[in-house]
Amino acid sequence: MFSKKILVLGGDGFCGWPTALHLSESGYDVTILDNLSRRIIDLELGIRSLTPIQPIDIRIDTWEKVSGKRLGFKMLDIATDYQELADFLNELKPDVIVHFAEQRAAPYSMRGAKEKCYTVNNNISGTHNILAAIVSLGLDTHLVHLGTMGVYGYTGAGFQIPEGYLPIEVKNDAGEREPREILYPTRPGSIYHMTKSLDQLLFQFYAQNDGIRITDLHQGIVWGTQTEETRKDPYLVNRFDYDGEYGTVLNRFLVEASIGHPLTVHGTGGQTRAFIHIQDTVRCIRLAIDNPPKHGDRVEILNQVTETLRVRELAKMVSEISGVDIQNVTNPRNESDENDLDVSNAGFLSLGLEPITLDAGLLDETIELSTLYRDRIDMRKIPACTAWNQDRAEVLNDASRSDDV
Amino acid sequence: MFSKKILVLGGDGFCGWPTALHLSESGYDVTILDNLSRRIIDLELGIRSLTPIQPIDIRIDTWEKVSGKRLGFKMLDIATDYQELADFLNELKPDVIVHFAEQRAAPYSMRGAKEKCYTVNNNISGTHNILAAIVSLGLDTHLVHLGTMGVYGYTGAGFQIPEGYLPIEVKNDAGEREPREILYPTRPGSIYHMTKSLDQLLFQFYAQNDGIRITDLHQGIVWGTQTEETRKDPYLVNRFDYDGEYGTVLNRFLVEASIGHPLTVHGTGGQTRAFIHIQDTVRCIRLAIDNPPKHGDRVEILNQVTETLRVRELAKMVSEISGVDIQNVTNPRNESDENDLDVSNAGFLSLGLEPITLDAGLLDETIELSTLYRDRIDMRKIPACTAWNQDRAEVLNDASRSDDV
Repeated sequence: MFSKKILVLGGDGFCGWPTALHLSESGYDVTILDNLSRRIIDLELGIRSLTPIQPIDIRIDTWEKVSGKRLGFKMLDIATDYQELADFLNELKPDVIVHFAEQRAAPYSMRGAKEKCYTVNNNISGTHNILAAIVSLGLDTHLVHLGTMGVYGYTGAGFQIPEGYLPIEVKNDAGEREPREILYPTRPGSIYHMTKSLDQLLFQFYAQNDGIRITDLHQGIVWGTQTEETRKDPYLVNRFDYDGEYGTVLNRFLVEASIGHPLTVHGTGGQTRAFIHIQDTVRCIRLAIDNPPKHGDRVEILNQVTETLRVRELAKMVSEISGVDIQNVTNPRNESDENDLDVSNAGFLSLGLEPITLDAGLLDETIELSTLYRDRIDMRKIPACTAWNQDRAEVLNDASRSDDV
Repeated sequence: MFSKKILVLGGDGFCGWPTALHLSESGYDVTILDNLSRRIIDLELGIRSLTPIQPIDIRIDTWEKVSGKRLGFKMLDIATDYQELADFLNELKPDVIVHFAEQRAAPYSMRGAKEKCYTVNNNISGTHNILAAIVSLGLDTHLVHLGTMGVYGYTGAGFQIPEGYLPIEVKNDAGEREPREILYPTRPGSIYHMTKSLDQLLFQFYAQNDGIRITDLHQGIVWGTQTEETRKDPYLVNRFDYDGEYGTVLNRFLVEASIGHPLTVHGTGGQTRAFIHIQDTVRCIRLAIDNPPKHGDRVEILNQVTETLRVRELAKMVSEISGVDIQNVTNPRNESDENDLDVSNAGFLSLGLEPITLDAGLLDETIELSTLYRDRIDMRKIPACTAWNQDRAEVLNDASRSDDV
């Protein structure tokens, strides 16, 4: 049987690792490419995954023992080494490239000039190098890219967010209304989110000019840690971030709950966010691979989300399970305190996704992990301290001074 | 009298050099920053300016002799050396940065993977480094950036192209039409033009998040060579590109006319383009500097164009002046053969611009220059050979094979 050859860029990371295992389990021939940058940033920030993740070679050997399947591995920086990337792609000739190899934390991308520049250079050069190499090598590779819901911006749109393309009306020369469909006009709220908006324009160009098949997945905030495959052996455990830079909001609440720390809600917690469980992430990637767009001049865009909730609703749910209080803290982000979010995920539903929704049972699993590894929690790393701009920095400073009193 | 301190990035180039002189002549305190990349690309491609441009230090000394004014100069690569850029900005603390420091030829940006990656990395990292440095240093610098009409795309819009922002109607939750204004949904036709679309999103973010004052100028195709200041001494002469990569269409026709070579029109020549004379470019930059946007969350976007013409109309005009024939050749670009273009330039008109329009007298000047330096013309460099994609490459190949017969 023909088995698609799949290259997972960033396959050592939080989404990449469970995706690589899921695709391998599903019978694809999987190779991971990673420069281990996420582990290096751990060292830089003095943080570590709550779960004790194994070195990549032990991960791969363990998967072989458990499944009988061998993952390929290539250590390479796709952003800084175009020629080595092109040589590698030319040798492998993957049918599909799944692209997770971007710096993916909004707070980290806002820390300072160094991190802003790194995020832009790494994400844009990396994505563009892949596209340029596919064209230059004449490959017919389907590119599946992880985008973010954040490209749509975090102010209420006033309508349901469509999947990438917005129907509008413009006035033509004769002054008559004319319907058009445009790439959604993005309004990203951080440097990280902005890089995914830039990616969209790279994809638009390469689809239109060279006919590359591209699927861009605008993902919500991921919660949960383990998938069917990562559960199969402790050495396969997925990484779990709870710190102020890389920890996503629900996972951070669950860690706080496990140690009896108040759940820290930014501002009023009135921000509505879109969520997805890590198990659904890996299923969505597989659905995207199995349903490539036709050759044409348009990028396929799907919203990879399963539900929306206000942050304070999340906190309330975790508080009820755990008995831990909620604490409203100053929001370091430059955003509205309250926003609505209504988002379409019709694409994945039509492809057969049966969403996992927020459920106490699944939260339990993460609380258990947090409890099991509570000795590894560094409380000092939990607060989100990176201010979005000068104004926010001053508000944060004032708040911390009044805390001192 | 207070004199604004102005830093001209790319101040050794075709638009940058005459702008630096015009601003210096107007009484500003001008410093040029350049990495001389345009001269280096000349070496790489085996081309040179038709006009014998002088080394930058001779240019600067000559300007001092002519005007009594000294231009500062810093050699630096803003894309690859963030820290040196930040240190330099911190020392100079410019009131205004005029940013021309991007790779600016669409054909060069489409030559191959190397040039595509260079154009993206150079243009995006350079622009982003400036923005990140302004925020990090807490400067209140007004950034004036040279964009391009190409961000709007080259297919007919069906309405007058506005200045950066498009009024649209969307359907809200209640199904009612609601007016909005959005950043124009760009559809660039080359890697080069795409980088200017990416720049727009960088500007949108930094204006919104950090309140940086930014003016983005979407310029048409420049024609002409000399300005009032570059004419003052032969050693101040502006560069003039006539080759297939860097030569803009009208200047290429004028060189062809001067040596009796048929005027090479791509396809039917039915593409409508927007134009501006180099003298108006420098005036527009000064108007933009003198009219900075207010601090706020929105980039000021102006269309820096004075008229629109179809390429075949241009060719006809040059043919009538020179008696040289027109030759229709295969178009290497992936674009429609015929398109309309109606573009607003209300902004600069309201600021007092009195446009120079296409006029035989001004064409004469360039024909005279071409004739004066005809010994420097390399005929082999005139044809535009860079195909936009695989399809275009095959069409070009077929055409050149049938030419051989």
